[in-house]
Amino acid sequence: MAQKPSIPKGTRDFSPEQMRRRNHIFSTIRGVFNRYGYQPIETPAMENLSTLLGKYGDEGDRLLFKVLNSGEFTSSLSPELLQPGMVNRAALAISEKGLRYDLTVPFARFVVQNQAGIHFPFKRYQIQPVWRADRPQKGRYREFYQCDADVIGSKSMFNELELVLMVDEVFQQLNIRTAIKINNRKVLYGIAEHIGHPDRLIDITVAIDKLEKIGAEAVMAELQSKGIDAEACAKLLPIIGLRGSASEQLDVLRPLLEQSEVGKLGMAELDELFGLIAQAHKAKPLHATVELDLSLARGLNYYTGAIFEVKALDAQIGSICGGGRYDDLTGIFGLKGVSGVGISFGADRIYDVMQQLDLFGQTDEWNAIMVANFGEAETLYSMSLLRQCDLQQTPVLVYPDTAKLKKQLDYANALRIPYVLMAGDAEMAQQQITLKDMTTGQQTTIAASELAAALNAIIEQKQA
Amino acid sequence: MAQKPSIPKGTRDFSPEQMRRRNHIFSTIRGVFNRYGYQPIETPAMENLSTLLGKYGDEGDRLLFKVLNSGEFTSSLSPELLQPGMVNRAALAISEKGLRYDLTVPFARFVVQNQAGIHFPFKRYQIQPVWRADRPQKGRYREFYQCDADVIGSKSMFNELELVLMVDEVFQQLNIRTAIKINNRKVLYGIAEHIGHPDRLIDITVAIDKLEKIGAEAVMAELQSKGIDAEACAKLLPIIGLRGSASEQLDVLRPLLEQSEVGKLGMAELDELFGLIAQAHKAKPLHATVELDLSLARGLNYYTGAIFEVKALDAQIGSICGGGRYDDLTGIFGLKGVSGVGISFGADRIYDVMQQLDLFGQTDEWNAIMVANFGEAETLYSMSLLRQCDLQQTPVLVYPDTAKLKKQLDYANALRIPYVLMAGDAEMAQQQITLKDMTTGQQTTIAASELAAALNAIIEQKQA
Repeated sequence: MAQKPSIPKGTRDFSPEQMRRRNHIFSTIRGVFNRYGYQPIETPAMENLSTLLGKYGDEGDRLLFKVLNSGEFTSSLSPELLQPGMVNRAALAISEKGLRYDLTVPFARFVVQNQAGIHFPFKRYQIQPVWRADRPQKGRYREFYQCDADVIGSKSMFNELELVLMVDEVFQQLNIRTAIKINNRKVLYGIAEHIGHPDRLIDITVAIDKLEKIGAEAVMAELQSKGIDAEACAKLLPIIGLRGSASEQLDVLRPLLEQSEVGKLGMAELDELFGLIAQAHKAKPLHATVELDLSLARGLNYYTGAIFEVKALDAQIGSICGGGRYDDLTGIFGLKGVSGVGISFGADRIYDVMQQLDLFGQTDEWNAIMVANFGEAETLYSMSLLRQCDLQQTPVLVYPDTAKLKKQLDYANALRIPYVLMAGDAEMAQQQITLKDMTTGQQTTIAASELAAALNAIIEQKQA
Repeated sequence: MAQKPSIPKGTRDFSPEQMRRRNHIFSTIRGVFNRYGYQPIETPAMENLSTLLGKYGDEGDRLLFKVLNSGEFTSSLSPELLQPGMVNRAALAISEKGLRYDLTVPFARFVVQNQAGIHFPFKRYQIQPVWRADRPQKGRYREFYQCDADVIGSKSMFNELELVLMVDEVFQQLNIRTAIKINNRKVLYGIAEHIGHPDRLIDITVAIDKLEKIGAEAVMAELQSKGIDAEACAKLLPIIGLRGSASEQLDVLRPLLEQSEVGKLGMAELDELFGLIAQAHKAKPLHATVELDLSLARGLNYYTGAIFEVKALDAQIGSICGGGRYDDLTGIFGLKGVSGVGISFGADRIYDVMQQLDLFGQTDEWNAIMVANFGEAETLYSMSLLRQCDLQQTPVLVYPDTAKLKKQLDYANALRIPYVLMAGDAEMAQQQITLKDMTTGQQTTIAASELAAALNAIIEQKQA
């Protein structure tokens, strides 16, 4: 056991300092979800593989972490399954469970399984880790948290509006300037019809989804490699390159989609959503810019209406939040015709943006009070005084050992603790205690009877 | 896909109602941990199997969920490994990772791996799920949360005192009457010496750990089956059956352990701890009863000093919290001589106790305000009014669809929402809004300009 222990690649430990930052992000998101009337649920880390398989494409199936069956699993491995090329089937022979890959499929499973107890429209949120056996790389992990809010069982565009307002509020609170990009899958279908390839919607969305990353030429090359002719590409490019206000872009698009029933439906949805957003903005301005981006595609094929993506304006990073409407997510589990819409915040990318932009600020402070230890009687005296004080949520950390004062103060500094309370014989005799401000070095002696008031005044001042 | 989806046995979904109750328990525990200056960390769900194996006994190894390696894992399965009886070795050939079994071993691994960045004494807490491939039964799950607080790198008995105070505070806040039982592993060793079997400490502790469950006779039978003679048993029984105050029991025990150096050390530790608790109690009374229980053993072999267990006084259930001091937990990962002490709260059992005793009360209420939907203009009007109001954390749920009012009010009732806001043409024309109290049925019309004040008054009254 001499070897230093380690953790699996792509996974992470989180220190108290990192936890403080992460919790700041989670509690901001959770606070907004709560305030909009979304309620939390949780689902198990392990799902039956039958729930997960086939929901994320072949690549997704491959990236599922599979959990080995208990018991004599080897007896399920026929010689045939041990042949080269049979490894996927062998895996399924010896594992029935897998770790969840996202929160969307477990949510759909939850809704179908528990539908009798659910009141629709069901507004739920879920903040839990997910696992993917992806190749680990910078900013990509094998275990990471998703923060999802969905409303299911309502077709109203008010849900889309509300999600936009929620996104705006989260990033305003986190102090991240953002652009919320919106598009509509029905409009994308209409565009596919317009360029003569309605049957290739998926190839088209997959390709244009990469527009920002790889550029227009590479997208065109990819499309042509998929059999979409140059003429169609020539029609597509100016459309997904449109800029300007939503209504300006829609005015250009309207005549082009005249022949597409689905496309016209999508246009009407965009009209309605941007109209609602404009009215909400008039009543109380949004902080983010909200734009129609016809090049926005979202890779996931279950989207059927509005789609969203959020970019940080001041950082070079992919989207930090995304989502959209799906008309039949629960259909895969046998519950048809229940429309929903949702968003998902990427906590890790948000963390990276905030770190890059130095936005954590006060979050890094730990407003604790440390009780120095000068011996058993002294420490009991200080602890007793503090136990009488109602300091609300302020942490009080008792230094447990009777160590040299310098060592104790160094400890307080290392932990960024701003105040240390000290009581020796003199203080005990006078029913007093000494407060040391670790920033200024200043010491103040306080009567025991006034300790609560003094500390609460300091805490209030800190928080202001 | 016609089959109704399900989740793996021993795992659970949590509904919003259950989450509200669970979050009440978690946030109470987290609040106390925070206020005592413990800081959160998190570790990955998956650990390397080399970290986990051999730490929980053979039974524990068997109960680890193992995660199948990615890639061509079958090539690691030599014909020998497929023979009957080789299944454990076969499992290790094709899985390198496992789900964490508890939070203690990952914490020890964390401390050793990250020791360069840790300031000792390190007070940390961790609230995360753990997984065990146990046979599921009533109250025992394959995925459940542990809530652990530990301080590592300090031998001071102030840590034990503080943990007792924390336990007391948690259960006081949750309104659960408890007895905190304390013992000491060194004293148990001294007793083993006294009865002539110092080498059989583990057998003895394992057996007496079952005293309450199976009774004295069955414990004696088990001890004798392990080769501990009747004479030794006859000496043991009256000791572990001692009752009375800590000092009364220690007075009986003192002469018996006169010959045991380790036992005397343990007695001194108990003297000190009960002395500290008595003084803390004098300064501010504890709510729990705190007792010395010489029959308390705690199954886990890494404990070396004080051990704790907490029983709910008004419910028939096993311990709802437990812990103790360990002198060498990190030794298994190569960091020697770092003493620590910790406690672990069992959230699921606490939940069961609170449900049994009907202690959730207010937790079950959802103090949200619903905005009824009479059409697009009306809903935008109400939403806009509410977006101008600072209602702190109060959830505002907009009913997204323009449905019949009865349907909307039924929905509010089903979700236990106490207030519904309604605005139709009349209210819009007058710049007013109508508030319906769902409990009394009473409706009040409020001027838009006074909405925030009116709602905040209601919220304050609710919370009082």
